[in-house]
Amino acid sequence: MEVPELKKLRRAYGFDEVAIVPGSVTVNPDQTNVSLQIDEFEFPIPFMASSLDAVVSPEFAISLGRMGGLAVLNLEGIYTRHEDAESIIKEVTEASQEEATPLLQRIYSAPIRENLIGDRIESIKNGGVCCAISLTPANTKKLAPIAVEAGADILFIQSTVTTARHISKSEKGLNIADICSNVKIPVVVGNTVTYQATLELMETGVHGVLVGVGPGAICTTREVEGIGVPQVTATLDCAAARQEYYKRTGRYVPIITDGGMRTGGDICKAIASGADGVMLGTTFAQAEEAPGLGYNWGMASFHPALPRGTRIHVGSKGSLKQILFGPTSMTDGTQNLEGALKAAMGMCGAMDIAEMQKTDLVIAPAIKTEGKYFQLAGRW
Amino acid sequence: MEVPELKKLRRAYGFDEVAIVPGSVTVNPDQTNVSLQIDEFEFPIPFMASSLDAVVSPEFAISLGRMGGLAVLNLEGIYTRHEDAESIIKEVTEASQEEATPLLQRIYSAPIRENLIGDRIESIKNGGVCCAISLTPANTKKLAPIAVEAGADILFIQSTVTTARHISKSEKGLNIADICSNVKIPVVVGNTVTYQATLELMETGVHGVLVGVGPGAICTTREVEGIGVPQVTATLDCAAARQEYYKRTGRYVPIITDGGMRTGGDICKAIASGADGVMLGTTFAQAEEAPGLGYNWGMASFHPALPRGTRIHVGSKGSLKQILFGPTSMTDGTQNLEGALKAAMGMCGAMDIAEMQKTDLVIAPAIKTEGKYFQLAGRW
Amino acid sequence: MEVPELKKLRRAYGFDEVAIVPGSVTVNPDQTNVSLQIDEFEFPIPFMASSLDAVVSPEFAISLGRMGGLAVLNLEGIYTRHEDAESIIKEVTEASQEEATPLLQRIYSAPIRENLIGDRIESIKNGGVCCAISLTPANTKKLAPIAVEAGADILFIQSTVTTARHISKSEKGLNIADICSNVKIPVVVGNTVTYQATLELMETGVHGVLVGVGPGAICTTREVEGIGVPQVTATLDCAAARQEYYKRTGRYVPIITDGGMRTGGDICKAIASGADGVMLGTTFAQAEEAPGLGYNWGMASFHPALPRGTRIHVGSKGSLKQILFGPTSMTDGTQNLEGALKAAMGMCGAMDIAEMQKTDLVIAPAIKTEGKYFQLAGRW
Amino acid sequence: MEVPELKKLRRAYGFDEVAIVPGSVTVNPDQTNVSLQIDEFEFPIPFMASSLDAVVSPEFAISLGRMGGLAVLNLEGIYTRHEDAESIIKEVTEASQEEATPLLQRIYSAPIRENLIGDRIESIKNGGVCCAISLTPANTKKLAPIAVEAGADILFIQSTVTTARHISKSEKGLNIADICSNVKIPVVVGNTVTYQATLELMETGVHGVLVGVGPGAICTTREVEGIGVPQVTATLDCAAARQEYYKRTGRYVPIITDGGMRTGGDICKAIASGADGVMLGTTFAQAEEAPGLGYNWGMASFHPALPRGTRIHVGSKGSLKQILFGPTSMTDGTQNLEGALKAAMGMCGAMDIAEMQKTDLVIAPAIKTEGKYFQLAGRW
Repeated sequence: MEVPELKKLRRAYGFDEVAIVPGSVTVNPDQTNVSLQIDEFEFPIPFMASSLDAVVSPEFAISLGRMGGLAVLNLEGIYTRHEDAESIIKEVTEASQEEATPLLQRIYSAPIRENLIGDRIESIKNGGVCCAISLTPANTKKLAPIAVEAGADILFIQSTVTTARHISKSEKGLNIADICSNVKIPVVVGNTVTYQATLELMETGVHGVLVGVGPGAICTTREVEGIGVPQVTATLDCAAARQEYYKRTGRYVPIITDGGMRTGGDICKAIASGADGVMLGTTFAQAEEAPGLGYNWGMASFHPALPRGTRIHVGSKGSLKQILFGPTSMTDGTQNLEGALKAAMGMCGAMDIAEMQKTDLVIAPAIKTEGKYFQLAGRW
Repeated sequence: MEVPELKKLRRAYGFDEVAIVPGSVTVNPDQTNVSLQIDEFEFPIPFMASSLDAVVSPEFAISLGRMGGLAVLNLEGIYTRHEDAESIIKEVTEASQEEATPLLQRIYSAPIRENLIGDRIESIKNGGVCCAISLTPANTKKLAPIAVEAGADILFIQSTVTTARHISKSEKGLNIADICSNVKIPVVVGNTVTYQATLELMETGVHGVLVGVGPGAICTTREVEGIGVPQVTATLDCAAARQEYYKRTGRYVPIITDGGMRTGGDICKAIASGADGVMLGTTFAQAEEAPGLGYNWGMASFHPALPRGTRIHVGSKGSLKQILFGPTSMTDGTQNLEGALKAAMGMCGAMDIAEMQKTDLVIAPAIKTEGKYFQLAGRW
Repeated sequence: MEVPELKKLRRAYGFDEVAIVPGSVTVNPDQTNVSLQIDEFEFPIPFMASSLDAVVSPEFAISLGRMGGLAVLNLEGIYTRHEDAESIIKEVTEASQEEATPLLQRIYSAPIRENLIGDRIESIKNGGVCCAISLTPANTKKLAPIAVEAGADILFIQSTVTTARHISKSEKGLNIADICSNVKIPVVVGNTVTYQATLELMETGVHGVLVGVGPGAICTTREVEGIGVPQVTATLDCAAARQEYYKRTGRYVPIITDGGMRTGGDICKAIASGADGVMLGTTFAQAEEAPGLGYNWGMASFHPALPRGTRIHVGSKGSLKQILFGPTSMTDGTQNLEGALKAAMGMCGAMDIAEMQKTDLVIAPAIKTEGKYFQLAGRW
Repeated sequence: MEVPELKKLRRAYGFDEVAIVPGSVTVNPDQTNVSLQIDEFEFPIPFMASSLDAVVSPEFAISLGRMGGLAVLNLEGIYTRHEDAESIIKEVTEASQEEATPLLQRIYSAPIRENLIGDRIESIKNGGVCCAISLTPANTKKLAPIAVEAGADILFIQSTVTTARHISKSEKGLNIADICSNVKIPVVVGNTVTYQATLELMETGVHGVLVGVGPGAICTTREVEGIGVPQVTATLDCAAARQEYYKRTGRYVPIITDGGMRTGGDICKAIASGADGVMLGTTFAQAEEAPGLGYNWGMASFHPALPRGTRIHVGSKGSLKQILFGPTSMTDGTQNLEGALKAAMGMCGAMDIAEMQKTDLVIAPAIKTEGKYFQLAGRW
């Protein structure tokens, strides 16, 4: 007897399961262009720093901005709840593992101070770089005008899963289209992983979409709630939505793959899957300039009822400059990210990100062999 | 030369191999409804406790019932063989690992005392909750009437694999249709994993079907006998049978995924695969209220000729209330199960279980990465 | 550009990758029949012991024969090269790991003594059981008549890969059809793994075919030569050849899955893949009655130019009776193999091996989970 | 809603994921022919040594050449930069792991001395064997004529990814067709992994193509840049290009699978995937005759901005003769490579490499089992 199929289960892929196929044309890496454009802003390198308190301080935002990238400041975290953010972070990093979660809960229960919103934005603007800030949907209507007033250049609206249609009885749901019309700055929203949701978000008028829900293999969102789509498939699907939306409207809305990338190789694969740029957390938390002093924690780590994730020691891997541009002595793909991307684009004959998005991918699981045989890592 | 295909090998999936795709609509978790209905009984939460002696005592059944779930008492175990069940269980938990199996064999060789059946059921009923009890097919004809007489509300008939057509020479096989007609209470049967067997069981008139044979990856039924279907595929197939049966008859028979779930994520995936509810063993064995004092054992652990499984230390993870509703400090998905389910339903825009059953799944194996990189566990 | 496909790569499956689907009918295990027939010989249990010197001595052959199975004596090993085989084997088991290979090389360089062939066969026949012996193709023409003369009942002709068409310049290849006509006893040949080779072997008139080349996951034939087909697919393909040959000729030639099975579950899967019986090495080497005293070694372990495998300590797991029929305290599927097979057949509603061969299989990789969660091993 | 597919993801396979299917005909291994032809040169064994400084010295090239293989000398490494190469290599092997990379950087920053090119080639020619040398595209136009003048027999042009169409602003890209016309010796180029690129390279007139980019599972090119195609699929695709080019032109251009092979089994699989020969690094670095004294390093290990790989201890596994022809006591497939290939060809009924290329492959992942059960490694 034939079993009727209740639903179609599509295979989804993550970074560890694919590899980029080199091209039939190669190009000198020096001639490749890796810039990213969000509305009127152009960034020489397509690397963004996640709006995490251990990653992006105003000082970090200035450093990354001057090197060509974009850091997003969390407007609902330590920097807007505490005057002396540095001491607070030091306290977090010095707490024992057991004390860390309750301490974070205490720290994040302090109220957001509107004057600090202005101060932090001003600091970044004074550094002469583009200022991007992040809000949750629940606080956007109230705090976005204050941030815009203070000079913010790009508004990120972020929650675990964001859709254009949110049903809520207790509060009137955030209307993203209204926000896009009302604020005078570009709006980037996320996160999402599906074709349909991306298409609908683009139709609200946003200027960028963040891709990634539960991306990592050990991500606790997948353990706690079972939700998540691996990043290669998520990026491919959202990029398909971007293409469809562009075809319909002529407006190009970049997508940013957010989370789950650990190496230059993963970043190259995100681009090859259709991303216009990538957003990195741990990678930047490991920079000497990161405020977290070698630690990192997510914004759900201290949720009182359903915490997901905890404070983690990530260590320090080098200066921001080394991480972005090398030179490096690390051979594991965690440094010289721009060099890695340009080298990969060279091997694929891709002159810019748009061409790199068209490169072939194969499914090629990274089987770990136990023997420590020498493997040629390319020549010259 | 083309090789003729002797049989079709279909790919089957387990919890670790799939993930739930968030929706294009999201809903506030507070507005979701997770209730489960079995015949006339409605349970506010769709979580059942397995009929294991280390999990369900009359006291535990009352606690879980008051919190909205349903515990099933094993009528062929310690509680109906021994007056002082508590001391017996204490003895089991204090035995060395070597002594445990012979001790269990001795304990379970005591005769079932019919007066204890009445006593245990009465205790549960006195707690003011629905009383579910479990019997094997071999004992159902004899003991079910006694249980009904004593006030049991729901009868579970369970064996490793139960079908509507059982061939036996030595005894006249149990006719499930007859039982359903004769007992005046709803009947839930299991376990099964296939479309055909589920359809046939529903045709006998049962009010619920338990899904799961050899579900876990390390389940010894798969080692000892090679039998088993991973739970996602098993649930999908049995749910397809439920839909077909409903279409034909207009009677909706819920299916309960039983076994193999370790986290809130697994539970969400079972529902997304089509389950109306789930049955949990270890999860509840880890409650402070569980009679097993941090231990658990299966009902095949002491089979004299072909034992499968043994006494296992599962530890204590918190109160039943914490496990079901939080708040929790555990970030591994083993607590606040209702919260996790409602959060997942929110991200999928599902207002109730029936809508959650329609959500998309992707095949996305949980590849364990060795690096301890920080992974964002969702935001806010 | 579309890439032309040079060859079709078919997916092949091993025991760890499949599971048996329970049926819509169940049957009482006591009513199942697991007998195996080879030509006129009928064996109550379908378990054969491999022709390895550490597994099958004449005494072991008698023991297994009396319990209903069949052991195959290696006619080119220690028993026919050395009068006092017991002392020789003791020496092997007492050698250090470094000494073992040179010692084996020395022991196996002694000449085969024709008088010992007669003696060993006579011993087995005196035990009142069917006597099966094994030869390589190179020695068959010379030694088979001696063995038949001495009273052997079944002749096994075995090499790593055996085909009906062997090309050789130095010697006139063995003509299997001639052998089948000339010897007056049934001939079983192997090993093979393909549809085509099995069909051609059956056309030579053999009475059984052994299935399995490089079956195990860690088998060195796959490491050394890259050759091998996982056993589930190999068995399915060879069973398809058996069906085709039966359809054409009306003669039923049983196939025996040989190697790679570690548990009762694996044996059940071999049968469900189409095997009529199974041949086991390690399982029987672990019997108290096995001559190897807890050790085992393959017949390629001492090949001077290209050794594959070595002497391995397998330990002692219980009496032959326990391994075959229980009762057992082992919960890992290595004991009570008949009980496991009958239980599995019961869950599949299979009255005999022929019906069990028709049961459904699903592809269900055995993912090892790291958490030690309790898993229900079936009930009652 | 159906999701439009942005790009097709093809599944690619590596050595660990396939196995060779034995044939319906078998042949005596002694009768097989494993020779490889490159233009007018014929090599009795199809094994080449990689142009790595720790593998190929002039002395090693002579040894391997006399045994029937071909070693490729790196013309841009230690042997052409330093008179006393032996001392330099000794220094590398004696450095601590921390000192190794800076030391290599220093050693490889010395200029290439044209007189040493002549000396090294002369040494090899004096050994009476075919002399193959390797250059990068950037240095080919300048140094190839010198090498040819000095008597080199075959020119290898190698970079991580080589295509017939390279775009470069700063330098006029190497025109491979011109080189092929101008040098009077056969040209082998690489590396490549795709059908299209191989076809285009063959159209330039080359006499051989090296297949392999980022082949190994732990290859850092995949980590750093995400680039790579597993070797079985890469070889199949490039072999398809060779067949297509042969069909169009009648000229047969051999392809050499380069990298990722650790055992005789892997080598057999490369041939079965369509390779005419294989290029080995680690395997030969482990020979007693290798100049690296038990160490090996890649030519990208000391790249200042984006190093990939490092100095690795590979140990010494035996003489070159043992590795190639045995006899051996190693049972892991790392010795007697010719014996392994001939044995495999025997089991597949392949008389020569061309027939072995046609053998069937199955997809059969090498699942590692944790139990240490004995596995029969073939018989006799």
